Order: sequence, then C-alpha cells, then structure tokens
Amino acid sequence: MRKIIIGVMGPGDGATEKDKKYAYELGQKIAENGWVVLSGGRNAGVMDAVSRGAKEKGGLVVGILPSKDGKDGSEYIDIAIISGIYGARNFINILSSNVVIACGMGAGTASEVSFAIKFKKHVILLTDNIHAVKFFQSIGNDLVHIAKNPADAISQVKKYLGK
Amino acid sequence: MRKIIIGVMGPGDGATEKDKKYAYELGQKIAENGWVVLSGGRNAGVMDAVSRGAKEKGGLVVGILPSKDGKDGSEYIDIAIISGIYGARNFINILSSNVVIACGMGAGTASEVSFAIKFKKHVILLTDNIHAVKFFQSIGNDLVHIAKNPADAISQVKKYLGK
Amino acid sequence: MRKIIIGVMGPGDGATEKDKKYAYELGQKIAENGWVVLSGGRNAGVMDAVSRGAKEKGGLVVGILPSKDGKDGSEYIDIAIISGIYGARNFINILSSNVVIACGMGAGTASEVSFAIKFKKHVILLTDNIHAVKFFQSIGNDLVHIAKNPADAISQVKKYLGK
Amino acid sequence: MRKIIIGVMGPGDGATEKDKKYAYELGQKIAENGWVVLSGGRNAGVMDAVSRGAKEKGGLVVGILPSKDGKDGSEYIDIAIISGIYGARNFINILSSNVVIACGMGAGTASEVSFAIKFKKHVILLTDNIHAVKFFQSIGNDLVHIAKNPADAISQVKKYLGK
Repeated sequence: MRKIIIGVMGPGDGATEKDKKYAYELGQKIAENGWVVLSGGRNAGVMDAVSRGAKEKGGLVVGILPSKDGKDGSEYIDIAIISGIYGARNFINILSSNVVIACGMGAGTASEVSFAIKFKKHVILLTDNIHAVKFFQSIGNDLVHIAKNPADAISQVKKYLGK
Repeated sequence: MRKIIIGVMGPGDGATEKDKKYAYELGQKIAENGWVVLSGGRNAGVMDAVSRGAKEKGGLVVGILPSKDGKDGSEYIDIAIISGIYGARNFINILSSNVVIACGMGAGTASEVSFAIKFKKHVILLTDNIHAVKFFQSIGNDLVHIAKNPADAISQVKKYLGK
Repeated sequence: MRKIIIGVMGPGDGATEKDKKYAYELGQKIAENGWVVLSGGRNAGVMDAVSRGAKEKGGLVVGILPSKDGKDGSEYIDIAIISGIYGARNFINILSSNVVIACGMGAGTASEVSFAIKFKKHVILLTDNIHAVKFFQSIGNDLVHIAKNPADAISQVKKYLGK
Repeated sequence: MRKIIIGVMGPGDGATEKDKKYAYELGQKIAENGWVVLSGGRNAGVMDAVSRGAKEKGGLVVGILPSKDGKDGSEYIDIAIISGIYGARNFINILSSNVVIACGMGAGTASEVSFAIKFKKHVILLTDNIHAVKFFQSIGNDLVHIAKNPADAISQVKKYLGK
C-alpha cells in the first residue's frame, strides 16, 4: 500500500543551472514512473525544480520543510511536512526515501549522502564534483553509484528499488 | 497547491474501542472532504483506525512514524515519513496539520495537544476525559474546542480551516 | 560517573512572579544537593530563574536551547546544548532528566509533563493550576506528584531518584 | 559564563586503533585547556576514547546520545544528553560545538563535517582519508582545516576559537 518514495537531494541557493535542469528532468521522470518525489521542499534550487518537474507530470510531491511555519516551501509541493527541526530534517529525508538521488553537491547535500550511506540506502550521485564521487565511494562503495544524466539515474533507481 | 492536512492524534495500544470507532469514522469523513489525513502512523489504535477509514474512502494517508526502519507503520498508510526521532516526531505531527483532532487521550496525545496550543493550531478534543477538557481549555481556551462525535468534529474542522 | 540531572520545566515569557521565585529556589537547592540542573535554557521565565539560582550556589547548569544559534540562552548557563530543533527539544529535556519538576504551567510545560509520563519519568508539579493536577494524575497517576513548595519538591526528588 | 565546547566527532565501531589513540590524546589536551569535550557519547570508538582521555585529566565530558534510554553511553561521560533522535543528533553535536575536530572518518562523521560546513563552524580533519580532505575542502575551504596529529589539532583549535 505504501507508495515508493524517491528522495532527490541537492543545493538550494547554491544550485547551478545544470543542477536545476537535471532536477526538473528527474522530477518529470519520477512522476512518469508513478513514484512519489520527496525533497527538502524549499522554494529554491534543486528542491523547487524537482518538485516543479514532478508536478507538471501529475506526480505526487512531498517536501520536508526545515522551518516551523512552512513559509519556505516550494509552490509545487502537495504534501508539506513542516518539521521545525531545521537541518536535522535531512536525517528524515533519507530515512523516508526508498532510493536517494543527489543532484548537485553542497554541504547540506553531503550530509544527506552521508546519512544515506550510514542507514544503508542506495544513493545515486549526479555531480561534476569528482572529489565527492571519490570520497563517498571510499566510505560506502557498494551503496554509492554514479549517474551520467537524469535518464541514467532513473534507470539505476529501477535497479536498486528491488534490493 | 498544497493539500489541506487534518491531523488526527490519539493513543496507540491504549486506545479504547470507542476511540478506534471514532478514529475510523474521522478517517472516512476526512477523505470524503478531500483532505489528507495525517497521524503518528503506527499500526495500532487511533493511528491505524483513522488510516484505515481514510483509505477505504480513497483518501490520501500520511503517517509520521517514530521508528528509523518504518516497520511500525500501519498497512493503510500511503506516504510513510520515517522520522527516526521517536517521540520528538509529535512536534512535526502538529506543525504539519492545518487543524488537529485529538481522538481519545493519553500521554503522547497530551503532548500533541500541548504542542498544538503552543504553536497556535486549532485543536478539537473528542474525549471522555473531562479533566483533559478543563485543563487544555485553561491553558489555550480560544484554540481548544470540544466535539460530541466525529460528525461534530468535522463540522468544526470546516469552521477553523478558514482561520 | 554520570551526574544526576534534575530537569526543571516551566514557562518562559508566561511565567508568574511566583513561578520565577520558586524556580530560583529550586535552582539553589538542586545545586546544594550536588545535582546538575537542566532546563530549556532560554533567557526568560523559569528557565532563566532556575539557572540563576543554581549558578549562585555554584551548581552546574545545562540548557537545551531551541534555537540554532544559541542567542536565546540564559546568561547563567554553563553548558549550552544548541539543539536547533525548536519545540522538539522538549522531548530531549525529559529523556535527559533523572527526575522532572514542572514549575508553573503553560503549553510548552504541558508537553514536557506529557513526555515525562510517556517515558516513565517521575514528575513533580508545582502549580496552582488545579486542572493540570487532575488531568496529569488522570493519565499518569503513579508518576505524577504534587509539591506544596520548592522544599517539598526537592524532598520528593530525593525519594524518586532511587526508583 | 558559557563554557567553551570542543566537539570531537569520529567513528564508533569502525574506529581504527590510530583513531582511538588520537581521540584519547585529544580528550586529554582538551581537558588540560579547560574546555568541555562533547561527542556523540557512545561507548565505542572515538566517542569512548575521547571521553576517557578528558576524564583522566579531570575534564568535563558531555555526550549527546542517540538512544532514548541512554544505555549506549560511555562510562566516561559526566553529562549524558539522552536525545532519543538517533542520527538526527549529529546536527545538535555540531551546533553545540565552538570548534569541531573530526578524528577518523566514516558515514556518521561525514554527516557531522557536512553540518559543520553548512552551519559555518571551523572543522579540523585528522584523517588518513585523502578523499575526505579533498572533498570537504572543495565544498567548504575556508572552514576546513587539516591537522597532522592531536597536538596540531589543538593548536588550530586555539586559532579558530577567537573567530
């Protein structure tokens, strides 16, 4: 009965144009596959873009917001979980996702990839930061995967959903 | 775009038959009104009953689970938010709800009614515990309301959603 | 090796003069007994007064602050735990205390008394709110105790520390 | 009035002998400088070793435990903050520390270094994982520092405490 949840993590204000383009495409593809998209939910960067992509394809969009009033949320979110626990919600983002995609890289995203490894979630990296790839593979190699583009990320999600 | 979320809080193992019957009816009515039902999500008591009621009427059911593996969840949940923060998730239950209904009473439920008052949420009590009614009215009288039965609770939800 | 921690919970801005006077005396007595005092740590009401009382008697004072920058802390705190999780830190306040005293009453304090009952901590109420007394006894009677004044509260703490 | 808190983060069961030796020395030196040591507090690896080192030099030792019963704590802790929020407590570890030292590396530690960068804390890495160094410098270069050994780490702490 539970819906499959794909977590897409990535920078807010620090997202690049490519990060946002990729996030938008990921959102579309996640919705097309009938999965729920979950992100940190803010109205910025990857969180906003992935929500918009999923929404445009009729997907169901969950955002786990850091604030205690929910005013920081993307307009494309259906279900706003207003956590009030700020950065500590990164932990919940990961536990709630069946598979995690990191789209872009920054300090918040790094905390989420780290939690994914810690709690044995498959995590797919979509980043140009070669140091991120090498580091996360050094501490969680069987769980850390590299994608070339959003389509590749989605095809890997399918592979790891069964595991 | 955001869906309206009605939080239904109540005991797990300590729920009475009446609590569970009322929770089931609340779930049905919340779904019939097109609102999302949110609860603590466990496979016990009020959380399970409200989720089942909503599910049977085609509603969307969110559970904010205490555990870090999600195994404690009701089978009637669509969206499992696996918090891993145990009782601290009661805070998130409240912040994420537009209006709160407390169905039955116990220590966990009391923490949630308290948080509702603290964070200025309207909360509707459906309980035979007259001390609970008097106490919560003494600390949050404009926000604390009494319902005679599930139908009355839902009609009050409509009233407070606009506020 | 672990120090005994006595949690003193109570209103911030809503504290009465009596609440603050009692909190100050509790802080003094907790320090005189060689226990650590723990509170929500803010520079207001009961939290500030209990910290000041303990500090003046050379006690060790812990504050679990809600904010993420710690600027809301009482000047009388030795150890500032900067939680960044706002109201959710009430849960931690309780889990970390060997025995809990509620000095005064309000919505935040009520959430803490509720958590104390939920997690099987002895909690001593020092309040004029008769509804609070009746309600908390109705849901947690073996764990909920009434004190007439700070000296009585401390003598009850001694009784429950061994249990 | 607030004591200076030095956070020492590092692996539990995955700690190497060198990590534990370094952590023990760090604990000693932190205590000798009159600072409080704060860690994740478990009775394993770096958390246990740093607590033991500080304790032996008469330091004050704080542990922010993941569990809700506190049974996972090191015997060398003075102040056990029993969080009950599991991995989410890594966020609190960082916010509560004036300066952070990462001794060794693993997924949990990586989440803490990430949070340090996110929340603008100076963080000193004491690790043989060259990928960790390169990665964390790539996302937080002004805040991320490398130490050759515990003595070097402590001398850098002094430098960054004033900033």
